[in-house]
Amino acid sequence: MAMAESFFDKHKSLLEQACQAVQDRGHWTPYPEIPSGKIYGENAKAEGLTAYQSSLNKAFSLQGPAVVGHVGAEVSPYNGELGIQYDAYRSNDLVAAAKHALPEWRDAGPEIRTGVCLEILERLNQRSFEIGNATMHTTGQGFAMAFQAGGPHAQDRGLEAVATAWLATSRVPADSLWNKPQGKHDPLVMSKRYHIVPKGVALVVACSTFPTWNTYPGLFASLVTGNPVIIKAHSQAVLPVAITVEVCQQVLSEAGFDPKLVMLAAEGSEVSIAQSLAVHEDVRIIDYTGGNSFGDWLSANATQAAIYKEQAGVNTILIDSISNLKRAAQNLAFSLSLYSGQMCTTPQALLIPRGGINTDEGHLSFEEVSSRICVTISKFLSDPERAAGVLGAIPNPVTIQRLSEASNLGKVVLESATCPLPGFDDAVYHTPLILSVEGADDAWQQEQFGPISFIVAVDDTDQGLALISNAVAGKGAITFGVYSTDESVLDRAEQVAIEQGVALSCNLDAGVFVNQSAAFSDFHATGNNPAANAALTDPAFVAGRFAVVQSRRHTSV
Amino acid sequence: MAMAESFFDKHKSLLEQACQAVQDRGHWTPYPEIPSGKIYGENAKAEGLTAYQSSLNKAFSLQGPAVVGHVGAEVSPYNGELGIQYDAYRSNDLVAAAKHALPEWRDAGPEIRTGVCLEILERLNQRSFEIGNATMHTTGQGFAMAFQAGGPHAQDRGLEAVATAWLATSRVPADSLWNKPQGKHDPLVMSKRYHIVPKGVALVVACSTFPTWNTYPGLFASLVTGNPVIIKAHSQAVLPVAITVEVCQQVLSEAGFDPKLVMLAAEGSEVSIAQSLAVHEDVRIIDYTGGNSFGDWLSANATQAAIYKEQAGVNTILIDSISNLKRAAQNLAFSLSLYSGQMCTTPQALLIPRGGINTDEGHLSFEEVSSRICVTISKFLSDPERAAGVLGAIPNPVTIQRLSEASNLGKVVLESATCPLPGFDDAVYHTPLILSVEGADDAWQQEQFGPISFIVAVDDTDQGLALISNAVAGKGAITFGVYSTDESVLDRAEQVAIEQGVALSCNLDAGVFVNQSAAFSDFHATGNNPAANAALTDPAFVAGRFAVVQSRRHTSV
Repeated sequence: MAMAESFFDKHKSLLEQACQAVQDRGHWTPYPEIPSGKIYGENAKAEGLTAYQSSLNKAFSLQGPAVVGHVGAEVSPYNGELGIQYDAYRSNDLVAAAKHALPEWRDAGPEIRTGVCLEILERLNQRSFEIGNATMHTTGQGFAMAFQAGGPHAQDRGLEAVATAWLATSRVPADSLWNKPQGKHDPLVMSKRYHIVPKGVALVVACSTFPTWNTYPGLFASLVTGNPVIIKAHSQAVLPVAITVEVCQQVLSEAGFDPKLVMLAAEGSEVSIAQSLAVHEDVRIIDYTGGNSFGDWLSANATQAAIYKEQAGVNTILIDSISNLKRAAQNLAFSLSLYSGQMCTTPQALLIPRGGINTDEGHLSFEEVSSRICVTISKFLSDPERAAGVLGAIPNPVTIQRLSEASNLGKVVLESATCPLPGFDDAVYHTPLILSVEGADDAWQQEQFGPISFIVAVDDTDQGLALISNAVAGKGAITFGVYSTDESVLDRAEQVAIEQGVALSCNLDAGVFVNQSAAFSDFHATGNNPAANAALTDPAFVAGRFAVVQSRRHTSV
Repeated sequence: MAMAESFFDKHKSLLEQACQAVQDRGHWTPYPEIPSGKIYGENAKAEGLTAYQSSLNKAFSLQGPAVVGHVGAEVSPYNGELGIQYDAYRSNDLVAAAKHALPEWRDAGPEIRTGVCLEILERLNQRSFEIGNATMHTTGQGFAMAFQAGGPHAQDRGLEAVATAWLATSRVPADSLWNKPQGKHDPLVMSKRYHIVPKGVALVVACSTFPTWNTYPGLFASLVTGNPVIIKAHSQAVLPVAITVEVCQQVLSEAGFDPKLVMLAAEGSEVSIAQSLAVHEDVRIIDYTGGNSFGDWLSANATQAAIYKEQAGVNTILIDSISNLKRAAQNLAFSLSLYSGQMCTTPQALLIPRGGINTDEGHLSFEEVSSRICVTISKFLSDPERAAGVLGAIPNPVTIQRLSEASNLGKVVLESATCPLPGFDDAVYHTPLILSVEGADDAWQQEQFGPISFIVAVDDTDQGLALISNAVAGKGAITFGVYSTDESVLDRAEQVAIEQGVALSCNLDAGVFVNQSAAFSDFHATGNNPAANAALTDPAFVAGRFAVVQSRRHTSV
């Protein structure tokens, strides 16, 4: 364990900073988000691309139980099949191997485990360009976004989970002396020991759109608290997870642990291993990001496990009045475009009073505001290079199908265009479809995953707030934005946010977008509405992943 | 809110001490456990008795929604019907009233709420003698135990929950400044606010044996985190809960809050309100102590709520060798007798190698050890006054019935005697029934609630450990004791404790008993075996009772 201990020492200062950051919640990150050679090394970009390309069209092998087959169905929306074959395992074998690895990891204690996790994160950071390419070609994100969201931002979320779990476990003392006075008699004295004990085997069911960002919090929170982790990757986005598991296994091995403490459960397009893993009696923790169908199934069936899940939602923006229309419209144009609306934080509906709103350019009618937003989007996306980088590509045919059928959901105020994606033969990007509807319409109150957004005419700000409150209560939401020059409107919006458990962003008109959630500062989701039953990363996200087992005996003082 | 703020200031030093105590986990309590006039006031004992008696045979009214009837079925096992009538309410009305009271309590913030809770605890402490009498006559505990467990020890557990919840909520900052450098450009700066938001309405389903001790942790953890609480009292043990609710409502009113933030859901012997409350969509937290039947029902049906529950278990003692047989036997005699085995921590089975054990009195055969324990019990209970005080009375006819039918579960090595209870006409106490069985027998591996214990012959220490491990995994346990002069046996026992998630007590042979769990130091249950899915009071017990909702907006530095 000498190596494992040295990992903790090596990263001690980083851990202290991270712990301070999660408690202060200002801006902080140790993982630079800029894909620059100056930061990551002159050749990092080229080497990352090469590393990615060298994975293609071959087997990607990891440590695991008996291999029972090979699977692989990843298709880059930019340039076709990845051709990678992953080992397939039986779910029972995976759980048995994880369970076998558990005791040594448990008995190593939080300090050793935390050191190992911090080393894993450092090495993941070093592979950010490779992971960026893998993320781009599995999720369809533009490279810059794929680098950030798949690399440093995901690592930030991982480190945040490590720090939060470390704080929770290290606050439980390893031992205590219990010394109870007995009046004239000798005191009763006991020495007590407190062990941090994991809940069991943890399962992470990763999503196709953010295979690392949404995976790292559960992965690292479970690891620090002593639970082995099986990651069931989405069939379309395995590679970023496989690289992650490879790094975990390398560091675990170097530290003298069973590398099978972290395993990949890959699957192809036809077989699904998620259900049999999820209901296994030894699986006690499940982290899930994805649609309601499987999320609801998990809650109904995986009753032996604690489930931390993020599902569908309806994110909204209320526009009451705007102090800088130009910048607000630019901000919204970016938010609605980014990754073709495939973020769980993308606004789906912009609610605007039908009588129009006050702006720094005077009172504008509903149609004028709507038009201004659409024009700004069109202008923003008029350069194909920029459009491709921001929009990326859509990997899932179901999303493209949904987009193609969405025009009848309202009055089209901005048509979606399909354009050739520069630099990739046969690849296309899709610009957002914007529909105008009435507040009473049902369409905007259902998640329409993809580049489909609604401009919703409401009677007034109060009705807008009421509709948003109702939509969040019924369908869930992760983000809620408001534009107003009236503090009382901002206050009422904040009250709705508090009541419905949704994060509020006010008057975003600069370089922060409602879609963005910054680790160490922003809590992603709250756990208080149907979009998610947990938050990244609050105390509840880590506290349920371990128990404290004590022993006591008499001693003398 | 001036009064509410002053409560926090008044108790600030106490809170700081309690927070330190839950982190240090040594001995600490602000609520003296000795029912002494020197501590509680010269007339406290008499006044407490009078207060209790003045509640009898009349209505006990509290704040609540529309009264729809009156219920009351409490019978003192010492002296008959209490004759108290409680208001009955409709479950929907209770939840609606709680929900109505929620926003103001939520918006008051953790500091105000914590101050109110600390004031409630101080006033509960002042009524400890009254609560002691109420506890005695509803649970059947002897007065000394009823005073301690129903009064100061319950208050300790309440304060522990307050401190743990305060620590969890106060570690989330109220606001932050997020200042992100942008190279040559101006930084992006945002001010952020973080709101502690409750999960919803909380329900505590109290038990008949420890109506306050098992209720206060959930009650206070929910209150500090902003959730209104409805306490469904057991029909046999309402009064201690009613007094508690009365104190809560008084303090809440004085602090300017809706007293209906804490309400009593009483029920008689015929109607049950627990189920309709438990599945109400607005009830988001349930604390439950009781049998597996309702506990399992809750898990299957109250899926909208987070459930913290403690159910049945099989507590065990492994006897490998003993360094002080006399004291160990005395300790065990007390543990097996206390409150007639009606504690969730009472050992049910003592596993002893059939080849006998080494002791400070030489090697003793299995039969000699068994006999020594039985003789010690008999001697300990030979004085009727002491026996009555330790054993108390059994209020539930089902428990008496079980005892009367238990003789065929094994070979009787100590018969249960039914004796007149000094000072009370017609009341009786029951001494423990001790049965001898084989390790393979099923009887000792099922919870036999009441004064029924087993001495179990095992092949050797290893088999004993294996049987215990298996029993805890399958049936759950809250306590596990071991006697051994061999450190390696203690180590192996600790390993079983860690693996099965049960608290271990080693070589108890003085004034600490395996049944006892000291607040601020001992974690009661772990959440890692079927006896309980939560622990009193670890971080997980409080973290899931609130969410953090944030808002953010640009600002200038």
